[in-house]
Amino acid sequence: MTYPFKPDPRLDLVLERVVDAPRELLWRAWTTPDHVKQWFTPKPWLITDCEIDLKPGGLFRTRMQSPDGKETNDRHCCYLDIVPNERLVWTDALLPGYRPSGDPFITAVISLQPDGRGTRYTATAIHRDEATRNNHEEMGFFDGWGTVADQLAAYVKTI
Amino acid sequence: MTYPFKPDPRLDLVLERVVDAPRELLWRAWTTPDHVKQWFTPKPWLITDCEIDLKPGGLFRTRMQSPDGKETNDRHCCYLDIVPNERLVWTDALLPGYRPSGDPFITAVISLQPDGRGTRYTATAIHRDEATRNNHEEMGFFDGWGTVADQLAAYVKTI
Repeated sequence: MTYPFKPDPRLDLVLERVVDAPRELLWRAWTTPDHVKQWFTPKPWLITDCEIDLKPGGLFRTRMQSPDGKETNDRHCCYLDIVPNERLVWTDALLPGYRPSGDPFITAVISLQPDGRGTRYTATAIHRDEATRNNHEEMGFFDGWGTVADQLAAYVKTI
Repeated sequence: MTYPFKPDPRLDLVLERVVDAPRELLWRAWTTPDHVKQWFTPKPWLITDCEIDLKPGGLFRTRMQSPDGKETNDRHCCYLDIVPNERLVWTDALLPGYRPSGDPFITAVISLQPDGRGTRYTATAIHRDEATRNNHEEMGFFDGWGTVADQLAAYVKTI
């Protein structure tokens, strides 16, 4: 991988924000299970469980729960690249130990760059083809990932 | 990932050989396109093209050609973990730049450990489920990867 990652607009979706918090706090929010539970899915959906094994090939697991508690969705991802306070890359195309998954959808690149007293927060979703990228956009990528970024920005002020 | 990798016999297939060559030579054979072309597919099939970008997230591409020249098969894989002379991990579940692929099948872990004056060569194929593992075995994993290991062992004596 070459960084900074250059997204391909035909295949990738990019959400960018300047967040009024140092990147060290955003890093902690992204890499600590108890923090992830507080902001990682658009409310009123909940993250009821989170497991993190922060190394390349390690597990990033979240359990999402519907507001009425009737629906849960477990997602097992694998970390690929970890540069503390700067870059976090994970994918659902692999399970922990780099095992291929049965349901590949995205690789995510989270980039944290200093911007004045805050942080330029860039979340990129990388897809296998244009159809998958366009579906993701129609499913509400910008609303969903935007809401999550807003929740993250609000949450880090409390930690 | 934790090493040494512990394969799961329900999900993984392992080919092991002691090769009468130092592991530095095996490493060169695995990571140099002109070498890879000489041994990487069971003869009389050929590798007619190979491209290697030896870094995590980098491309490992091979083009296989049938003996009559009528059939070719391009395979795009992505390197995950690289420890020179010791370990090479790549997958077809991702394309270069960690992009999910449309056709995930295996992650491969190639391990080179000193053994007397030679090398213990271990090639592990990691699958997503038992069905995929069993299909791979029935497709001839042990014959195919065994022949390739024999070709590799013979070839490194010439470089």
